[in-house]
Amino acid sequence: MTRPHPRLSINQATIKYASLAEALDVTREAGVEAIGLWREPVADVGLDAAVRLVSGSGLRVSSLCRGGFFTVPEGPERRAALDDNRRAIDETAALAAAGAPGSAAVLVLVAGGLPTGSRDLAGARGRVADAVAELEPYARDAGVTLALEPLHPMYAADRAVISTLGQALDLAERFPAESVGVVVDTFHLWWDPELFAQIARAGAGGRIASYQVCDWVTPLPADVLLARGMMGDGHIDFAPIGAAVDAAGYSGDIEVEIFNEAIWATDPVAVVERTVNAFAETVGLSAATGA
Amino acid sequence: MTRPHPRLSINQATIKYASLAEALDVTREAGVEAIGLWREPVADVGLDAAVRLVSGSGLRVSSLCRGGFFTVPEGPERRAALDDNRRAIDETAALAAAGAPGSAAVLVLVAGGLPTGSRDLAGARGRVADAVAELEPYARDAGVTLALEPLHPMYAADRAVISTLGQALDLAERFPAESVGVVVDTFHLWWDPELFAQIARAGAGGRIASYQVCDWVTPLPADVLLARGMMGDGHIDFAPIGAAVDAAGYSGDIEVEIFNEAIWATDPVAVVERTVNAFAETVGLSAATGA
Repeated sequence: MTRPHPRLSINQATIKYASLAEALDVTREAGVEAIGLWREPVADVGLDAAVRLVSGSGLRVSSLCRGGFFTVPEGPERRAALDDNRRAIDETAALAAAGAPGSAAVLVLVAGGLPTGSRDLAGARGRVADAVAELEPYARDAGVTLALEPLHPMYAADRAVISTLGQALDLAERFPAESVGVVVDTFHLWWDPELFAQIARAGAGGRIASYQVCDWVTPLPADVLLARGMMGDGHIDFAPIGAAVDAAGYSGDIEVEIFNEAIWATDPVAVVERTVNAFAETVGLSAATGA
Repeated sequence: MTRPHPRLSINQATIKYASLAEALDVTREAGVEAIGLWREPVADVGLDAAVRLVSGSGLRVSSLCRGGFFTVPEGPERRAALDDNRRAIDETAALAAAGAPGSAAVLVLVAGGLPTGSRDLAGARGRVADAVAELEPYARDAGVTLALEPLHPMYAADRAVISTLGQALDLAERFPAESVGVVVDTFHLWWDPELFAQIARAGAGGRIASYQVCDWVTPLPADVLLARGMMGDGHIDFAPIGAAVDAAGYSGDIEVEIFNEAIWATDPVAVVERTVNAFAETVGLSAATGA
């Protein structure tokens, strides 16, 4: 087996059906140094137990997925969403503190889509900005960076009204870089003619809070939420994007996050081994090794 | 039946299984004044016969779909593609001349995706620019406007490497506005945070060669090429986009272009009637009536 790249992080979503304990085990046993966590498997064991498991694993925590989903208008549903995001911020701080040195207290935020029945895209985007403004002081106090993730435009209606890196930066830049950054995800952004300019802009402002990789495969599957492919299986040229992210000054962990039924159906040990190898042959070829 | 909006044009793709003669008939009989043509049904009867049919219909021709697909590297395949585009330019000129006054000699160009096995997105985009540069003098001599159509980013790998209106304008603006413009299509562009700024830019330069409408419906169907929905069935708010296109100075026909299996399976007469009504209730509410 290839020695894992020192900056490789296995995002838990890639091995979705593994429990937190299993995910930590297969990641550590493969020699991978970092993991990106999800709230649901953390909640399955409870935060205190999760903190102990993470602490005992010796792994770095590269992020917690995910908060957000705050496009609904003011009212009880919006208040509940914001309260839930505050809990996610607390969880992020606790889990990052439990991780090995070099862990990142980064909470990935997915904006949410249009509220049911609404066609007011500008309004939804405005409410995302309002939510970030409301959460930012709380995140700053907790030492957590909110990482705004632009999702592919094909999700704009039903999942995330933040669609480009430039748009995410326009919002992030209203706040201190320590508390609001962005996610660069190859799957969501590879097509963008402005990608390299916006990566440079993000780097200059110290805004790259997370770098996530996976491939764009065609034809898209029936459920486009599960369209993410293993690096090398699709159309993305990782070298220039990775070089741009490196040149922009990001030296943190690089998460592999793949939503894919076939990969989920595979034994997590095999998935991590395949991920280590695919990373080495694509992203790892050009990624600097010093974290 | 609602009286059709005077700027409504039925793009032939919406009634894909109708022959050219049938498409002209159902369009005219519904009281619609304009039609957007496709090359395949024109070829089915031959250009000369098509010209006679169009001339006899009394309809305006709003565009011909489509040329493009010129991302392959230099060689026989690329030469054949460029030759085919020259024929498409000739067809556009002939069909527009045969249409009623107000017809537009506009050839819609879809760039094409990554060549098989290639991950060189920048290279493919460069070859699109080279192709437009090669075709532009030919189009200018023929009095035809090449209309660069940015397609939704979900098609960037396999269909069109031009993904945003801004990117299309960056390319179009290298050439005279009379010979190279852009297509504004709500389905492809509705999500773009830069949409309104880019529509204004396009209008200021006289670059809007075609305005096409249809809706974005979720969930996306298994074949995302057939994801286009009837206006009102999806998430797009047509009023602000239409107002922006009007304000940008575009006063030409507005094409309804829908690729949708269920609509294709419906009698064309019923589809056109439904289109007239849906247009009146959405796009037509804000579109100026003076063409």
